[in-house]
Amino acid sequence: MHPFPLAFAVQANQLVVGGERVGALVERVGSTPLYVYDRAVMSERIATLRQALPAGLHLHYAVKANPMPAVLRHLAGCVDGFDVASGGELTLALEAGMAAQRISFAGPGKRREELEQAVAAGVQISVESESQLAAVAQVGARFGLRPRVAIRVNPDFELKSSGMRMGGGASPFGIDAERLPILLSRLDGEVLDFRGLHVFAGSQNLSAVAIAEAQQHTLALAGRLAEHVPGPLHSLNLGGGFGIPYFPGDRPLDLAEVGARLAQSMMPMPPALRETQLIIELGRYIVGEAGLYLCRVLERKVSRGQCFLITDGGLHHHLAASGNLGQVIRKNYPVVVANRVISSEPETPATVVGPLCTPLDRLAVDMPLGHARVGDLIGILQSGAYGLTASPTGFLSHPLPQEVLV
Amino acid sequence: MHPFPLAFAVQANQLVVGGERVGALVERVGSTPLYVYDRAVMSERIATLRQALPAGLHLHYAVKANPMPAVLRHLAGCVDGFDVASGGELTLALEAGMAAQRISFAGPGKRREELEQAVAAGVQISVESESQLAAVAQVGARFGLRPRVAIRVNPDFELKSSGMRMGGGASPFGIDAERLPILLSRLDGEVLDFRGLHVFAGSQNLSAVAIAEAQQHTLALAGRLAEHVPGPLHSLNLGGGFGIPYFPGDRPLDLAEVGARLAQSMMPMPPALRETQLIIELGRYIVGEAGLYLCRVLERKVSRGQCFLITDGGLHHHLAASGNLGQVIRKNYPVVVANRVISSEPETPATVVGPLCTPLDRLAVDMPLGHARVGDLIGILQSGAYGLTASPTGFLSHPLPQEVLV
Repeated sequence: MHPFPLAFAVQANQLVVGGERVGALVERVGSTPLYVYDRAVMSERIATLRQALPAGLHLHYAVKANPMPAVLRHLAGCVDGFDVASGGELTLALEAGMAAQRISFAGPGKRREELEQAVAAGVQISVESESQLAAVAQVGARFGLRPRVAIRVNPDFELKSSGMRMGGGASPFGIDAERLPILLSRLDGEVLDFRGLHVFAGSQNLSAVAIAEAQQHTLALAGRLAEHVPGPLHSLNLGGGFGIPYFPGDRPLDLAEVGARLAQSMMPMPPALRETQLIIELGRYIVGEAGLYLCRVLERKVSRGQCFLITDGGLHHHLAASGNLGQVIRKNYPVVVANRVISSEPETPATVVGPLCTPLDRLAVDMPLGHARVGDLIGILQSGAYGLTASPTGFLSHPLPQEVLV
Repeated sequence: MHPFPLAFAVQANQLVVGGERVGALVERVGSTPLYVYDRAVMSERIATLRQALPAGLHLHYAVKANPMPAVLRHLAGCVDGFDVASGGELTLALEAGMAAQRISFAGPGKRREELEQAVAAGVQISVESESQLAAVAQVGARFGLRPRVAIRVNPDFELKSSGMRMGGGASPFGIDAERLPILLSRLDGEVLDFRGLHVFAGSQNLSAVAIAEAQQHTLALAGRLAEHVPGPLHSLNLGGGFGIPYFPGDRPLDLAEVGARLAQSMMPMPPALRETQLIIELGRYIVGEAGLYLCRVLERKVSRGQCFLITDGGLHHHLAASGNLGQVIRKNYPVVVANRVISSEPETPATVVGPLCTPLDRLAVDMPLGHARVGDLIGILQSGAYGLTASPTGFLSHPLPQEVLV
């Protein structure tokens, strides 16, 4: 039914999340719609990553993918650090129990208050421009602190065939690589505690070869840049970009291949990086497949020969599944009737819509879900990352969905 | 600079909103980013509508376009009714002082609690399916009330060249027109207080001819359907669909033409509609041009020859301007340096981005804004409808913007 393996098993024809069948799960949560995140799926993913990637590598979680406090508390015990992208996320990361020295803060437009918050907290600031560097130094001087900084590099290469490219050309992210030799050689260690470099070339990539190539380029670039640094380069964030399959035709990333190729790129390590802690930063890859969005069929409607399943969930909770977050052409997420996965009847197509008065509010178009009945649960898989917080929850003033970690 | 007239004047090289220059306005509001809505622009638009459209027509406001409480309180005194699309909007409409009998409630997926709320409040429910009709009747029986209902029709025609089509084919919205003669003839006036019909063929249309044609078809269809109704047809909601210009090449709707053609279509009125109150339902057309989104330039960054203006606002506040709400190809909204509209230097292009760590976060691409400096205000015009509430405000955990009515 789906072209790639899904994280959740099926028991008694129901999806099972965190050991619970969705029917019972929804009953004990008490209302629909809801997002469910399975902690075991996250932990397994992290274990798989640690096994596939070279030993000693640090694994960071990018909080923006899913900042639910319970998810952060769980992941704080599993990964080596958190990467945050706003002052709000920084607060959440600290509240989740992550130590300040294992938090790094990136973002092209950090407000003055956010810089102050980050300097005061003692987290590492990924500086994205010369003027941000100057602003951080000023805050440090005013606070009598020596801010911990990394330089985010806008690389001179891109992550090929990537969902979103973030390097190679002109960019709001990072400092252009060719400007760094001079800047790095002039860093004043009295004022700033320079920790390392941060390179992020793209995201949502399913090609092991492309990712490995970007990592190889990153190591080479960092190796060259590190020679300009007065002291040692403590850390190098290689970025992430590991994608997960969403759409028909997508194939899961070959993680073993990524790991093997990265190990190869590290032999030999550029001399200037031999004491450097390597970091991989992942958001979607850690939480994406662990999440399920569940909504209930309010009505099954046949209009001019087409079947519509009208649900209590919609694009206001799951913008990405509606095709309105970065996609050019709308494609279907993997969607199932979660409490009745396999139909005993011949399958008929149905379109799943939400309650909003807009034709944009489509969660699945012409998928084999025609056996769903009023009261059934529609489940959208691969929904653990960029789900609720990336959605316009205020649109049409509907109630917020619940979020539960199981 | 912009291909269509804008709602706000320029004084001393600053945009003026509600009689205030944006510089002073932002100072008294105290922070950026913010949405500003100009009540005079809304009132003028409503006056223009009343002048252009046939006398006696009722004008309804579609709350979903902008549900800010202060906006609703202002509009409650200007229009003849509110159309709501959720229980939450219904609450807001009543709080704004709109009388229940002038509120109608549409939506393909009304939850049981919403139907109960609507029946209890005594608002008119636009019923979108046979099963919704049965559910309303049940609630009425249980409450000992006779619910006020209209039937939403899925017409057998579409609004041509429309931003979003909502009729003509299979649809989750309304009951297929061809099924209505039997349904209408069987309506039980003891159980339900049948008020009228509701036809909505599409939205965001800039063609007076297309809108007039849809209205003409709607009158003809309603005239035929009304003959099957046992009692009189009290009201007919003709829908809306009046668009506003957003993008280069867009031309404002010729409202006089719409009005003249509608008057023509009403002569003669189909006999069954002679006692019927006609309603036009508009959201975006009333508030869209009255709104301005303002954010501040945090940094002016040149990367590999391109100029980026990095602001404290972004797609988390204004998804539509980033091109991620229904657009297939991203186009620029009208964007200006609001506190320094005209440059004395030769104009250079700049790209306006927000603080989010994603390349989707672009508010303007290669527009002549290169004269903006750090601290300047970037203004996105035509932002009064489907702005804040249609945006993923939780994305990356940044603070909410303010909203002010002036």
